[in-house]
Amino acid sequence: MATMKATLMYGPGDVRVEEVERPVIEQPTDAVIRMLSTCVCGSDLWPYRGLEGEFPEPRRMGHEYVGVVEEVGSDVKDIKVGDYVVGSFCLSDMTCDICKAGYPSRCMHGGFVGTAQAQYLRVPLADGTLVAAPGKPTDEQLVDLTAASDVLGTGWFAADEAQAGLGKTIVVVGDGAVGLSGVLAAQQLGASRIIAMSRHADRQALAKEFGATDIVEERGDEGVAKIMELTGGVGADGVVEAVGTQQSMMQAIACCRPGGYVGYVGVSHGVQLDGGQLFFSEVHLMGGPAPVRKYLPEFIDKIYKGEMHPGKVFTKTVNLDDIAEGYRAMDQREAIKVRVRPW
Amino acid sequence: MATMKATLMYGPGDVRVEEVERPVIEQPTDAVIRMLSTCVCGSDLWPYRGLEGEFPEPRRMGHEYVGVVEEVGSDVKDIKVGDYVVGSFCLSDMTCDICKAGYPSRCMHGGFVGTAQAQYLRVPLADGTLVAAPGKPTDEQLVDLTAASDVLGTGWFAADEAQAGLGKTIVVVGDGAVGLSGVLAAQQLGASRIIAMSRHADRQALAKEFGATDIVEERGDEGVAKIMELTGGVGADGVVEAVGTQQSMMQAIACCRPGGYVGYVGVSHGVQLDGGQLFFSEVHLMGGPAPVRKYLPEFIDKIYKGEMHPGKVFTKTVNLDDIAEGYRAMDQREAIKVRVRPW
Repeated sequence: MATMKATLMYGPGDVRVEEVERPVIEQPTDAVIRMLSTCVCGSDLWPYRGLEGEFPEPRRMGHEYVGVVEEVGSDVKDIKVGDYVVGSFCLSDMTCDICKAGYPSRCMHGGFVGTAQAQYLRVPLADGTLVAAPGKPTDEQLVDLTAASDVLGTGWFAADEAQAGLGKTIVVVGDGAVGLSGVLAAQQLGASRIIAMSRHADRQALAKEFGATDIVEERGDEGVAKIMELTGGVGADGVVEAVGTQQSMMQAIACCRPGGYVGYVGVSHGVQLDGGQLFFSEVHLMGGPAPVRKYLPEFIDKIYKGEMHPGKVFTKTVNLDDIAEGYRAMDQREAIKVRVRPW
Repeated sequence: MATMKATLMYGPGDVRVEEVERPVIEQPTDAVIRMLSTCVCGSDLWPYRGLEGEFPEPRRMGHEYVGVVEEVGSDVKDIKVGDYVVGSFCLSDMTCDICKAGYPSRCMHGGFVGTAQAQYLRVPLADGTLVAAPGKPTDEQLVDLTAASDVLGTGWFAADEAQAGLGKTIVVVGDGAVGLSGVLAAQQLGASRIIAMSRHADRQALAKEFGATDIVEERGDEGVAKIMELTGGVGADGVVEAVGTQQSMMQAIACCRPGGYVGYVGVSHGVQLDGGQLFFSEVHLMGGPAPVRKYLPEFIDKIYKGEMHPGKVFTKTVNLDDIAEGYRAMDQREAIKVRVRPW
C-alpha cells in the first residue's frame, strides 16, 4: 500500500502529520493530484479552537490546493496527466442548472474537499472542479495560485456581490486573509474608494498595498459613524463582510447605503438578523460558500500576467511536517495566513 | 377656514370621516392636490387590528393617491396647476445620491405621506414626488393609476429585485393585493413561469388573469416541496415575498434556488433570520419600502396604452363617507383591496 503524509486534527489544538493511505482513482470522473502547495484556512481554526464540538475520530484537514495531475479516471476528458491545476473547496460538475447559473459552490452533484493538507489529493468531478494553468508556475505564481484556491475567491465573491466596480465606494469589514483579499478584489474590479476596517498595523499595511484608500480603526457604532462621515452621510455603495459575527454583520449592514449591496462570506457563528431592522436597512444581502470555481480562469490569467499578487496574504510558510506550528501561528494571529509546502 | 372630509382612525376598528382643515401650501416646494381617487392599504389594517399599540390621539390615514393639482409653491417648476398626478407613499426629491441610485423611497430629504384618505392632500417635494399623466384619465385609467400609487409599485419592486425577466421562474408568496401585483409585474417583466402560492379561489382567479402559470395551495414545508417538484429540484430563480411573517419569509427563502433572488416587501412583523441558515441558503435577499416613484413613468405609460390593468385588485369601491365599511371589508377579507371615491 502506497502511503503519504497527511494532516489530522485529533481535537482542539491537536494537529498531527501522519502516514496515511495514498488516494487512488475511485470514480471514472476522478483525478489524483500530487500536491505542490496547500495552506491553513481561517475556517480550520474553528475546530482548532474547540468551537465545533467533539471529535468522534481524528479529522483529515485542508481544502486549498495547487497540484500537478498524476492520474485521471476514464471519463475525464479535459484535465490531463501533467497539468498544473487549481481547484476550489467545492466540487462542481459545471453542467448542472446551479453551476450554469453561476453558483458552482452549490453544484447539484457536488460536495466539499476536506483532505488537502497532504501530499496527494483525490479530486472528484475533475473536469468541472479543476482548472489547468497554462504551464508550470514560477515560485511566485505558485504562491499566488494557492491563495486563488479559496481565500482570494472568497473575498472576490464578496466584492462581486457587493457590486464593487468603477466609481464605487466599498467598505471591507474584517482584516483577515479573506477581508484583505476582498480589498484586492475591489481594487481589481475598479472600485474608486476602498475603506478597510482594521486595527492591526501589519494588516493595515497589506490592505493599503492591495488598494485600500482609507483605513478605519473604529468598530461597532463608532466605526459606522466614521464610515458615514467619510461618505457624506450616504453610506457605502457596497460592503464586504468577512468575519461572521453578530457585530461584524450589523456593522456591515449599517455601513451600507439604502439600496447598496452587502456581500458576506464570514461563516455565520450565532448571527441573528431582525427582519424589521433588515427591512428598513433596505440593503441587498448575499453570501454563502463562495463559487470560487467560476472565477478561477480569470484569477489564473491575472496571476500569470503578474497583474495581482494575492499570495501576499501568506506571511508565513511551513513544511507539511511543521503544519502544527502553522496552525499555532494563525491561531495566535502571528501570521495572516500560513502556506504549507507538502514536500 | 376652508375644510374638507378626511379619514381618522380613533383606535383599533374605529375609523371615522370628519371635517378637518383643508391643507395649504406651506413650503415653496409643496403642491396641493384635489383628490380624484384613493384607497385602503393592507398596511392600514395593522393599526386597525390593534397590532401597533395605543393611539395617543386620532390618526389621519392614507398614502395612496391620484389627484389634480390645485396649487403649487413658488419653487415648483415641473408640476403645473391642472396636471393629473400620481405619487408614491414616500416623498422624494429625485436629486439626492440615494434617489439617483434608484431608491427614492429612501430619499435623504424625504418622508412619508399619511393623510391621503381625504379630499385634498399637501404633497411636499412636489417636483420629485409627483409624476404627471399625459392627460385626464378615463374612469378605468383612474382605477389603474390608483393601484400604481403603492400596491403595483410594491409588487413590482419585489419582482424587480427577484430579477423577474425573460425565461425566469418566479414564485410569489402571498395572495393579497401586493402579491397579486407581484404576479402582474413578473408577467410584464417577461417571466416565463409564475407560480402563485394561494389558497383562495377569488385570488387564484385574479392571479391567473394577471399571468400566473401555476397555483400552489400548500404552505410551509409542503409548499416548498411542491415548488421543488415543479422546478425539477432546483428551486425558483426568484421569489416575491409579500406577507411579512416568519413562515412566509422562510417559505420564500426555501423556495429559491442557490444564487436566486428573494424580493421581500411584506413589512416584517416579528421575523428573525438565522445567519447560518441564510448563509447556506445562499440567496440574494432584498426588501424594504418600495421605491415606487422610479417606476411611475413606466406605469403611467403602460396604463395609458392599456397594456396592463393593475386596478383589478380593487374588488370593492366605496365613497369616502363609507370608508369604515371599506376597512371592514378588507379586514374580513371580503375584498382584496378597496378603492375610495373622495367626492
